[in-house]
Amino acid sequence: MNFASDNTSGAAPQIMAALARANGGHQPSYGNDPLTRAVEARIRDIFEAPEARVYLVATGTAANALSCAILTDPWGAVFCHRNAHIEEDECGAPEFYTGGSKLVLVDGAHARMEPQALRRTVAHTGRGGVHNVQRGMVSITNATEAGAVYTPAEVKALCDVARDFHLPVHMDGARFANALVAAGCTPAEMTWRAGVDVLSFGGTKNGCMGVEAVVIFDPARAQEFELRRKRGGHLFSKHRFLAAQMQAYLEGDLWLHLARHANVMAAKLSEGVQAAPGAKLVHPTEANAVFAAFPRAAHVRAQAGGAAYYLWPFDQPLDGPGEEPLAARLVCSWATTEAEIEAFLSLIS
Amino acid sequence: MNFASDNTSGAAPQIMAALARANGGHQPSYGNDPLTRAVEARIRDIFEAPEARVYLVATGTAANALSCAILTDPWGAVFCHRNAHIEEDECGAPEFYTGGSKLVLVDGAHARMEPQALRRTVAHTGRGGVHNVQRGMVSITNATEAGAVYTPAEVKALCDVARDFHLPVHMDGARFANALVAAGCTPAEMTWRAGVDVLSFGGTKNGCMGVEAVVIFDPARAQEFELRRKRGGHLFSKHRFLAAQMQAYLEGDLWLHLARHANVMAAKLSEGVQAAPGAKLVHPTEANAVFAAFPRAAHVRAQAGGAAYYLWPFDQPLDGPGEEPLAARLVCSWATTEAEIEAFLSLIS
Amino acid sequence: MNFASDNTSGAAPQIMAALARANGGHQPSYGNDPLTRAVEARIRDIFEAPEARVYLVATGTAANALSCAILTDPWGAVFCHRNAHIEEDECGAPEFYTGGSKLVLVDGAHARMEPQALRRTVAHTGRGGVHNVQRGMVSITNATEAGAVYTPAEVKALCDVARDFHLPVHMDGARFANALVAAGCTPAEMTWRAGVDVLSFGGTKNGCMGVEAVVIFDPARAQEFELRRKRGGHLFSKHRFLAAQMQAYLEGDLWLHLARHANVMAAKLSEGVQAAPGAKLVHPTEANAVFAAFPRAAHVRAQAGGAAYYLWPFDQPLDGPGEEPLAARLVCSWATTEAEIEAFLSLIS
Amino acid sequence: MNFASDNTSGAAPQIMAALARANGGHQPSYGNDPLTRAVEARIRDIFEAPEARVYLVATGTAANALSCAILTDPWGAVFCHRNAHIEEDECGAPEFYTGGSKLVLVDGAHARMEPQALRRTVAHTGRGGVHNVQRGMVSITNATEAGAVYTPAEVKALCDVARDFHLPVHMDGARFANALVAAGCTPAEMTWRAGVDVLSFGGTKNGCMGVEAVVIFDPARAQEFELRRKRGGHLFSKHRFLAAQMQAYLEGDLWLHLARHANVMAAKLSEGVQAAPGAKLVHPTEANAVFAAFPRAAHVRAQAGGAAYYLWPFDQPLDGPGEEPLAARLVCSWATTEAEIEAFLSLIS
Repeated sequence: MNFASDNTSGAAPQIMAALARANGGHQPSYGNDPLTRAVEARIRDIFEAPEARVYLVATGTAANALSCAILTDPWGAVFCHRNAHIEEDECGAPEFYTGGSKLVLVDGAHARMEPQALRRTVAHTGRGGVHNVQRGMVSITNATEAGAVYTPAEVKALCDVARDFHLPVHMDGARFANALVAAGCTPAEMTWRAGVDVLSFGGTKNGCMGVEAVVIFDPARAQEFELRRKRGGHLFSKHRFLAAQMQAYLEGDLWLHLARHANVMAAKLSEGVQAAPGAKLVHPTEANAVFAAFPRAAHVRAQAGGAAYYLWPFDQPLDGPGEEPLAARLVCSWATTEAEIEAFLSLIS
Repeated sequence: MNFASDNTSGAAPQIMAALARANGGHQPSYGNDPLTRAVEARIRDIFEAPEARVYLVATGTAANALSCAILTDPWGAVFCHRNAHIEEDECGAPEFYTGGSKLVLVDGAHARMEPQALRRTVAHTGRGGVHNVQRGMVSITNATEAGAVYTPAEVKALCDVARDFHLPVHMDGARFANALVAAGCTPAEMTWRAGVDVLSFGGTKNGCMGVEAVVIFDPARAQEFELRRKRGGHLFSKHRFLAAQMQAYLEGDLWLHLARHANVMAAKLSEGVQAAPGAKLVHPTEANAVFAAFPRAAHVRAQAGGAAYYLWPFDQPLDGPGEEPLAARLVCSWATTEAEIEAFLSLIS
Repeated sequence: MNFASDNTSGAAPQIMAALARANGGHQPSYGNDPLTRAVEARIRDIFEAPEARVYLVATGTAANALSCAILTDPWGAVFCHRNAHIEEDECGAPEFYTGGSKLVLVDGAHARMEPQALRRTVAHTGRGGVHNVQRGMVSITNATEAGAVYTPAEVKALCDVARDFHLPVHMDGARFANALVAAGCTPAEMTWRAGVDVLSFGGTKNGCMGVEAVVIFDPARAQEFELRRKRGGHLFSKHRFLAAQMQAYLEGDLWLHLARHANVMAAKLSEGVQAAPGAKLVHPTEANAVFAAFPRAAHVRAQAGGAAYYLWPFDQPLDGPGEEPLAARLVCSWATTEAEIEAFLSLIS
Repeated sequence: MNFASDNTSGAAPQIMAALARANGGHQPSYGNDPLTRAVEARIRDIFEAPEARVYLVATGTAANALSCAILTDPWGAVFCHRNAHIEEDECGAPEFYTGGSKLVLVDGAHARMEPQALRRTVAHTGRGGVHNVQRGMVSITNATEAGAVYTPAEVKALCDVARDFHLPVHMDGARFANALVAAGCTPAEMTWRAGVDVLSFGGTKNGCMGVEAVVIFDPARAQEFELRRKRGGHLFSKHRFLAAQMQAYLEGDLWLHLARHANVMAAKLSEGVQAAPGAKLVHPTEANAVFAAFPRAAHVRAQAGGAAYYLWPFDQPLDGPGEEPLAARLVCSWATTEAEIEAFLSLIS
């Protein structure tokens, strides 16, 4: 009964099998192996983007921060939601990799930037010439940190704002697969067709051991990425092991199956939680995470019963004063079982 | 017949088995799992350093650059050999992570810093007060990039110079195991007893998939490392998979067995190459790499026969003018077989 | 009739005379001259801080950004008001000099941080361990960007919050003299006695040509400042010319006389503006700047009559739609004359 | 009798007069004043470069480091002489401003890079793809740190090497005027006609109070400079005072007269020193500095007699062992008098 995060699960069996297969014999290092080439080609196919350049790294923070670094100057503003992972959960990695850019925060319900709020924030930034940080780039998280999903039309609405100001767009897709199956669109529709320039295409949270692909739709930006990746210590020597994970992840649409499972589990959990006494959602359940408030007593029972999850926001004391329900973040993954959900629901009901 | 690098091999079977074992069930992420704790304790034991702090990262460049970043200010000089990996092969990662320090280069045969050369170089640096880059730290590579090994006494001689100038010492041990079995000493003798403050303890080149431990002998420096690791995007969420590799690597002295095998293979190869017509060593074979010059015609035969390796230095054209022998770098690994060596020797003889 | 900024004025005659006096003969460079030593001693006296270290630079941005750099790590949050100069008007200089820290914004009327808002913001930051930017430092602007003044008690209230979280405090005193004469306290009361660790002590805006002193009350932080100043290109070779300005600035309390004049002029202007038809203050006039709204027609007359000033906020179009009054920022300086004020008032009345 | 540096002199009277003239009335700040515009135009004329962009800063280190920052990526190598000011005397400012580039050192007598040495060094750098720091830019110091002067033909020879590798070229002209009058050529011939892209055009060492112009011959690089200057804290608010210095410096060829005087004084000093017993030059006297060795006893007499200068290199102990002559660096400036020279020569003779 672990809903703490989708990264508390291990790797899907197909991923582990692929690692074992990739292990035999010598292979050129640093990504010059045939498996890496095949994965790059496969991702270009999946995204219908024959010109795209694809790079593998092992962590989502690396994918995001390196992406920002090729999209903005050090004096550029990175426009993102107030609750974006790059703002709240990466210890300033974007600032580090960009050489000191400023994250400028945009509001919107459910951690979704509201296009008019984005437009106002961008318009407000950099009007004072060299005295101000300049407009740099936009970063969109899909699915959001509150478990919401942008549709392609919503992504496009944000990208249109960016385009009006000539800004490139990054998508943090640590949970891209979850967003995609929720939105029911193609990878191309969710990204470059809507106006996204660079995607952090997550694998780790959705059943891989540790791999993310950075998909750069404009190949002119690619060489700089390669240098920044190496300089950041993110170029693997035994690169075949990143490639093997990604190959298995894409093979037979495994990535979509895993994400669909996680989303289905979350929907089930969401439905069950809402039926519990005194419980209600605080964010709609659109992908693989449930944000719901329920009575303190239910929390006490759940935790005593062995359920692992975070209160939300993180700093809520369980034993604080007051009678109002406390919110929980409950994340489902490829590995979440119906039994876990039922056990949890029985504890809080 | 691949001698291009020790990173062209895959992972040892024990490593792969450990990954599979670690995969079951949920585990706390980001290093808060029991396997990680066990590995930390094991490394403290092996190094006889109960106060040491241990951190895992996935690449050697990350281990080195993060180590430098906690040991020197941005305005500090990093004293290292002219051919150190941090100088020549990391695309400026130390400069990036330290915030712009300067690598100040020291001479010495076989990529070993000569203590008197180190002393002269340190003494020459930073005499002009704030106008100069200040003395920052010393970084020692063991085994060296030329396949040589520092004995504990030689490490101590360098550390003594560092201590005279109150400088901390880092050891780049990407091939630490190879150096250790060559020197026939304990991990403690090679590191903190000789004066080393921080060690990049390599796993990847010696049979792991991708893991290095940074061993910080002075715990006061540890908290900064944690923050820099996260900020650099090097904190793995599914951290158990780094820990599992390292656990298996240390279990039953696997790391020493693998390194010993690589060194033995290199010795055999070295002996065979020296017996080839017109061949001679350009660096002594002390660890797992052979640097030897032999006639162009032999190179042509070797490469036609499928041998993979680099000419040395890297930019030598095989078809250049002149009659003199060309040097090769031939690296053996845990996976190198006698059959590969014999096949290679038959080609160049 | 120029109220655009206090930096559109020249230098006070006493400052120019001091430069001429300092020009004779050879002097040691880089601050090793007797005039610099004398200025350092004088500032220690004025601040009743015999241990303080004093450094001169030529711009306020340099003073602020270098001060931040010695007070926070790259992964630290700089807590400041949403309208602080370091946030809005320095093109990210703090981010650059600190190596990528994050400015975390605090609310409060008239660009004054509200202590409870500061406490909430600090408490909210860095709770997630290494995943978050850490709590770094607090920066207080006095006088504020909205022309308000913190009293020593108000400064202390903010410093007390900082102390509760073990954070150092910087004061951006680009208009320190204006704040001081408004508050009617001593330099010590406004700074270290209230809990300030480092002060940017402004000279440029208050009648100097270009000089600011950084006063570091804790000498342990000083050596790092020297190195960062040099590395930032802010150590003047002909340093006597910075020292001469500062000496004359302090001589006979010139700095306080100049600031008092500016404040008096602002009070007069404020009173006059409030008497104009349809006009009202948008911020209280506490130092040397008047923020007042008045009808568009009055703006048109003022600008046609040659008055120079900024609409506030900067991006207000004078010819926009709507009937409501538009705000202006009107800054007085040591050089502002009563005639200028009367001319301006006659235009808008 | 001060030969410690050309920055121990004050400012020429014409410079001081210009400051006084510029002081009257209000002026737009941050370089938007007519005097600044006039100076920019004048420099474009002098350099016969109607497209050039001109920016003023107050220190040579700022001029150099900002210039490097617009010419190379963080992962680029800055090729310069082993004794260049940017390598030895700026506390790593180029590394700071560029975001961590690496200065790669080139040899050559009298601190002049030898073109073949430059070519070899550039060719040797960055051959290993992303593993290496890339080729970034070339920086030429004229006059050199050893008092030598590159002719336009010699500058062109270095620029030709740079062009072969598609690298931009910076000239550190802290003593540009001294070099120019020594070489007897036009500013254009010494810079863009020879292939220089950006010039640090020094004023401070040659009679200004503190001003350097950065002349960017390719206007495409200019906008980035403006932002980096502001972000570095080097944009003066009362900018007219930088402009006034530069205007007076250029007016009536003052800059050339001052430099010619300094060079003539150095020639006289050089001749006199060579005639002293046991003395000999260690570098040819081509600009305004004399590098000469003479007996210890003569040093003792000179210093007892009040002569200020540095032993060369800086760390020579005057009272060390040995009988051989010790070298001195003796720098003449616009303010050096024949009387000073005669007094010095009488002491050492």
